[in-house]
Amino acid sequence: MNQFHCLTFLTDYGLADAFVAVCHGVASQIAPDLQVTDITHLIPLGDIRRGAVVLAQAAPYFPSAVHVAVVDPGVGTARRGVAVAAGNALFVGPDNGLLSVAVAAAGGAARAVSLTNRALWRDTTAATFHGRDIFMPVAARLAAGMPLSEAGDPVKVTSLVTLPQPEYRVTGNGAHVEVVTVDGFGNVQLSLPGADAPRAGLVPGTTVTLAWDSVEVSVPFVTAFGEVQDGEPLCYRDGGDWVAVAVAGGDAARRFGLRPGTKMKLTVT
Amino acid sequence: MNQFHCLTFLTDYGLADAFVAVCHGVASQIAPDLQVTDITHLIPLGDIRRGAVVLAQAAPYFPSAVHVAVVDPGVGTARRGVAVAAGNALFVGPDNGLLSVAVAAAGGAARAVSLTNRALWRDTTAATFHGRDIFMPVAARLAAGMPLSEAGDPVKVTSLVTLPQPEYRVTGNGAHVEVVTVDGFGNVQLSLPGADAPRAGLVPGTTVTLAWDSVEVSVPFVTAFGEVQDGEPLCYRDGGDWVAVAVAGGDAARRFGLRPGTKMKLTVT
Amino acid sequence: MNQFHCLTFLTDYGLADAFVAVCHGVASQIAPDLQVTDITHLIPLGDIRRGAVVLAQAAPYFPSAVHVAVVDPGVGTARRGVAVAAGNALFVGPDNGLLSVAVAAAGGAARAVSLTNRALWRDTTAATFHGRDIFMPVAARLAAGMPLSEAGDPVKVTSLVTLPQPEYRVTGNGAHVEVVTVDGFGNVQLSLPGADAPRAGLVPGTTVTLAWDSVEVSVPFVTAFGEVQDGEPLCYRDGGDWVAVAVAGGDAARRFGLRPGTKMKLTVT
Repeated sequence: MNQFHCLTFLTDYGLADAFVAVCHGVASQIAPDLQVTDITHLIPLGDIRRGAVVLAQAAPYFPSAVHVAVVDPGVGTARRGVAVAAGNALFVGPDNGLLSVAVAAAGGAARAVSLTNRALWRDTTAATFHGRDIFMPVAARLAAGMPLSEAGDPVKVTSLVTLPQPEYRVTGNGAHVEVVTVDGFGNVQLSLPGADAPRAGLVPGTTVTLAWDSVEVSVPFVTAFGEVQDGEPLCYRDGGDWVAVAVAGGDAARRFGLRPGTKMKLTVT
Repeated sequence: MNQFHCLTFLTDYGLADAFVAVCHGVASQIAPDLQVTDITHLIPLGDIRRGAVVLAQAAPYFPSAVHVAVVDPGVGTARRGVAVAAGNALFVGPDNGLLSVAVAAAGGAARAVSLTNRALWRDTTAATFHGRDIFMPVAARLAAGMPLSEAGDPVKVTSLVTLPQPEYRVTGNGAHVEVVTVDGFGNVQLSLPGADAPRAGLVPGTTVTLAWDSVEVSVPFVTAFGEVQDGEPLCYRDGGDWVAVAVAGGDAARRFGLRPGTKMKLTVT
Repeated sequence: MNQFHCLTFLTDYGLADAFVAVCHGVASQIAPDLQVTDITHLIPLGDIRRGAVVLAQAAPYFPSAVHVAVVDPGVGTARRGVAVAAGNALFVGPDNGLLSVAVAAAGGAARAVSLTNRALWRDTTAATFHGRDIFMPVAARLAAGMPLSEAGDPVKVTSLVTLPQPEYRVTGNGAHVEVVTVDGFGNVQLSLPGADAPRAGLVPGTTVTLAWDSVEVSVPFVTAFGEVQDGEPLCYRDGGDWVAVAVAGGDAARRFGLRPGTKMKLTVT
């Protein structure tokens, strides 16, 4: 009987190699009846922030799962591996900020351990495949009911690496925001929560002027893509309830040259 | 105990984002033991016809599943969501023709409802993610045994949107056909059913002249790719038993500039 | 009750079409509770060697599974289909060498049959989709407990097609090797087993000069990517414990023009 019904798996391993399947195999040897759900393995190589955002988008829909995430440019160096309890979920991966956004969204870290119990690791000489050799074997055992404390030494949750929080500030007639992430369609998610959009004046029927660098673009604030013509830009509250910019049937990030970190001023008119 | 063993899932969401996993999470909260099989999530964005064809290719191999399909350029506008019973399967998605080819292949719609029972939807403010908020929660409950009638108001099956049927006509020594779809290898499926190929004179050992626009190409009609040299074109009955055009080890669609909708005349010589 | 807990699936079918899902559907009709794990479906079309290497990388992590692999440029011609017992696993696919590397890694073929029992095949007229019509239906039945002998006529294991073994030779101060495969990140796996690296003088802290054609590159031999600067090349023992060449944060295959089969001389200095 597993303690957790489900384990999710997110990496930058890609889909063309055996890496992902190897980790599935490791999990299935340890916990044969555990359901393993892939979130994505197409995080751009080493892009911790993108991995953190996508993990945080998916994890809330698996409220009591073990989440394994590996985007780990520092594999084989001194960075530690951790398992973090937050809400009813556990997060397992490198302590490089990758887990931090999802952990915060789950209510913050309640407890954490450094993965120092080598008895749980696979026997191996490779220093470059911790997904297979450390994270997945430990996570599968945790999913099967092993107490968190057996995974390694407790660490202070305040010592966990966190990514800088994307900033935003609501003004009298708009907001200062930054681009958080760009999805596979080129839709641009901003750092303004949908819940704060009305306070910034962003409601359906208004027009928003987006200004960054020396560019200014005015777009309608709408509820659905279908309200604008194909090829037209729009501003809306996206599926994760963040304010976002898109182009109907197009790629807003490419069209406007927007990328994570771009600072932008929104003015409602 | 689920009524349906399996739920299939087809979208244009891509594999680089959290969208697909989020829907898996929603299903697993509602029906934890339901097997969810992805058909593909690489339908070109908004390409309803391609989605409809691929769904119809896969669905017959899951004769008693709930099939969820979301290619939905009209999301958030007035188009309705539907659940359709056909054969032993249920089809759930937008009523924009996406389901229609598979429904027809399953024997036609027996019953249908409009997804108007909001009590089954997720609480949400987003108007752009019906896969997560409407289609998957309703479908998972149907898979778990909820009667179709509880999903919403009954609608006449004759009112369901259907895609125009690709046309073909057998002639004395060939056929008039059109290109239905192009697969990931560039193989070109035509609107002529394999069962009608002999009547059109298309049997192994013949040569077929394909004519469209001002182009004419003569290719052997064969049983298997291995019968022609690498780089050579061929005509054959494909895995779905439709007459198709391919290039051994190559991409016929790109080589000949063929795309869905191209009208073509086949002449057997 | 299935005899095997798990079936793995590797092909060159791609992820944009219904082909993979169709095979999943076929398996689920025959063995509804069988767990099917995809290894990858992004083997380059018809690249038997790449398929063989990736299968051999993944299979050891599923020691008692049925492995179905289909990279089959000769489909529909005279090449036979086979099922091969090796270790506690079964391998099912075309007898074109695709299975041979994994079979060897599992201890060599103990028994094999040619898939001649047509009663197990799907009724079909298509000659081009043996994954759906022959390999998967036979494999699913084997996974469910059907004895190997029922799949077809026994064949001598020495008659199975095997790929030429990549060669290597340890010298006084290095080794002669060849490139075996390139993964999705451009990391280049050589034919030198990690276990033989020390004997060739390849130990952390040394510098290795790689020479091929008229090129010479000197790179550090390290334990982990993090030990070199981004953009710098390195030599290391990879996750499968083969000596490999990579570029931290980059693509070594593209940078150096390396591809499977390239002969290379390693000299330790």
